[in-house]
Amino acid sequence: MSARPAALPTEPAVTRVAVPLPGREYDILIGRGVAAGAGALIRERLQPARAALVTDANVAALHGDALLASLNEAGIAATLVVVPPGEASKSYRHFAQVCDGILEAKVERRDVVVALGGGVVGDLAGFAAASVRRGSAFVQIPTSLLAQVDSSVGGKTGINSPHGKNLVGAFHQPGLVLADTALIDTLPDREMRAGYAEIVKYGLIDRADFFAWCEANWRDIFAGGPARDEAVAVSCRAKAAIVVRDEREDGDRALLNLGHTFAHALERLTGYDGARLVHGEAVAIGLALAFRFSARLGLGPGQDASRVAGHLSSVGLPTRLSDVPGGVGDADAILDAMFQDKKVSRGALTFILARGIGQSFIAKGVDPADVRAFLSGELSAEA
Amino acid sequence: MSARPAALPTEPAVTRVAVPLPGREYDILIGRGVAAGAGALIRERLQPARAALVTDANVAALHGDALLASLNEAGIAATLVVVPPGEASKSYRHFAQVCDGILEAKVERRDVVVALGGGVVGDLAGFAAASVRRGSAFVQIPTSLLAQVDSSVGGKTGINSPHGKNLVGAFHQPGLVLADTALIDTLPDREMRAGYAEIVKYGLIDRADFFAWCEANWRDIFAGGPARDEAVAVSCRAKAAIVVRDEREDGDRALLNLGHTFAHALERLTGYDGARLVHGEAVAIGLALAFRFSARLGLGPGQDASRVAGHLSSVGLPTRLSDVPGGVGDADAILDAMFQDKKVSRGALTFILARGIGQSFIAKGVDPADVRAFLSGELSAEA
Repeated sequence: MSARPAALPTEPAVTRVAVPLPGREYDILIGRGVAAGAGALIRERLQPARAALVTDANVAALHGDALLASLNEAGIAATLVVVPPGEASKSYRHFAQVCDGILEAKVERRDVVVALGGGVVGDLAGFAAASVRRGSAFVQIPTSLLAQVDSSVGGKTGINSPHGKNLVGAFHQPGLVLADTALIDTLPDREMRAGYAEIVKYGLIDRADFFAWCEANWRDIFAGGPARDEAVAVSCRAKAAIVVRDEREDGDRALLNLGHTFAHALERLTGYDGARLVHGEAVAIGLALAFRFSARLGLGPGQDASRVAGHLSSVGLPTRLSDVPGGVGDADAILDAMFQDKKVSRGALTFILARGIGQSFIAKGVDPADVRAFLSGELSAEA
Repeated sequence: MSARPAALPTEPAVTRVAVPLPGREYDILIGRGVAAGAGALIRERLQPARAALVTDANVAALHGDALLASLNEAGIAATLVVVPPGEASKSYRHFAQVCDGILEAKVERRDVVVALGGGVVGDLAGFAAASVRRGSAFVQIPTSLLAQVDSSVGGKTGINSPHGKNLVGAFHQPGLVLADTALIDTLPDREMRAGYAEIVKYGLIDRADFFAWCEANWRDIFAGGPARDEAVAVSCRAKAAIVVRDEREDGDRALLNLGHTFAHALERLTGYDGARLVHGEAVAIGLALAFRFSARLGLGPGQDASRVAGHLSSVGLPTRLSDVPGGVGDADAILDAMFQDKKVSRGALTFILARGIGQSFIAKGVDPADVRAFLSGELSAEA
């Protein structure tokens, strides 16, 4: 007889993606229903006595009780810390609220902060976990597709400042990520598409095969079929590989910003108003722009740029500046917004450009005049 | 002919203490007048284009212009960020103010945040430097004796929460510390004594010879003679040695908390009201209590406890609970305050106790009943 029972037929199929950061290895467990076992999984790996479960009011209503029960049944005394839904919670004020909530829950350094939510909750709770007692253990349970394939992996945490997004934060790796792909069944279409833009990004960075696979399988990803788990796993593996090479973004990690220099400028110009433009939509436009800009600079073929925009359009994502409701101003306005972005280094613009699908690279010292000319062309072509 | 000119007779005598943290080595430069060369020293070591000079209104009035000039003359574009003086600035609100001030100064990750001030400014600016863009270079120019021998060394940064002191922060090592021992000539006697308590602590932890040297030389330390530079250098060397062994306080670093479990409780009970008790005074009482408690537990000789208290008293520092103006309540009140301190682990009390002067050790799982009995004895003996 084995001390460990064989897996029951009802147990979820789980894909494990390891993030082998030296001394801080952790796993991303991906699968439908994996969050239901959160308590036991967290207990087995981190042995906390207490947990602060940080979430937003919307997610709390959907999944709060189940997660609290899972933690408490595993012998982890869990306390809910609830913030308002939305990007506005990535603020100094809610950072203070979450830190104090974690302290109120008497979570010590060897206990755990669990982030249950999308990117906002993960970034905010992660920065609080990094800061309370100068660092507490941290678990991510991402509930949006965007968070499952991007923000929950890699240890970037933070809040926004009046000077820009994510300008205040910490590198703080989770001890475990549970990406339950069933949790996103209820996600609105628009948020699904927004998350999907980041999946496509990994193909465009350095996995041309994966991009082609996305073109063939995107409907099953959206429908919650087996392709969804596969897409999340490939995305997490792609991101983890880059993060392990360059945790603190001194080099290669910047590749993950493909499309993001444009995207951040567009988000800034729309006042971070999700009604007009959510992050993933901005990324979709940014990806299309990065490929068209690369083609214009003679770096990559125009047909790759067309193929990228074509695929993004076919899933319903925007790909042009004119797709932003209300517009984003002229080329100079966009350029100014880029210069305010944190990826700017010493006044020179750094872009991620591409020699083709799956062949992106870091381009330092891009001439702002070239960017302005490109943006002017985009705007007049669209007018 | 040498390319490097010999030191001019007017150059300050500088003692260098290296902090050899792997990959993040930095120097503490100690001496009268060393801050006057801040701009050139920072430029030589960190090559920043910009600096945010964080200070408080009092220090700004005394030294702000000189430091700004030193930085600007070295080609570093420097911007002042001024907070109100006092512990109340170690708050979420001023953390936000300083982060935004650093961003306003357009300091990027390779630029530098310079903390010019006492422990409050250093802790606050250090946490902001750790957090802005998830980590900017950081230089400490401590202007109090306490900061020169303790808080500016070792990378602990942070702010206070309503739940307690220093509960929110980061480990963020400076790239350089400039301890200008002439800057503290104008320090009020009470603050000098408070800083001196931390100097004595290093002797009590593991340097009995240094404690004896302090007994013989304390007047020259206070007067600003050569013993002051020597005392600061020995203190920094002692702290650096412990920090290099255990940067994140998983073990030995806790020795630096000698006297501090008592001290933090007393500060909490006096509402962090510096008019009643400043940190160094609380530490002095804490050191005396730690030695008397050790003696009462039969761990160390009573004459060492008497010698410790005797020396602290001779420089004008408090050593008894009854020395706190307005009192601190009964034994249970003090014990309750200890349990709220962050050094508490899983409900067991951890103390730094001593087998004698220079023979301190980490005592885990100290029985709260023993602490209560000891405190009751102290209070009734004093009544």
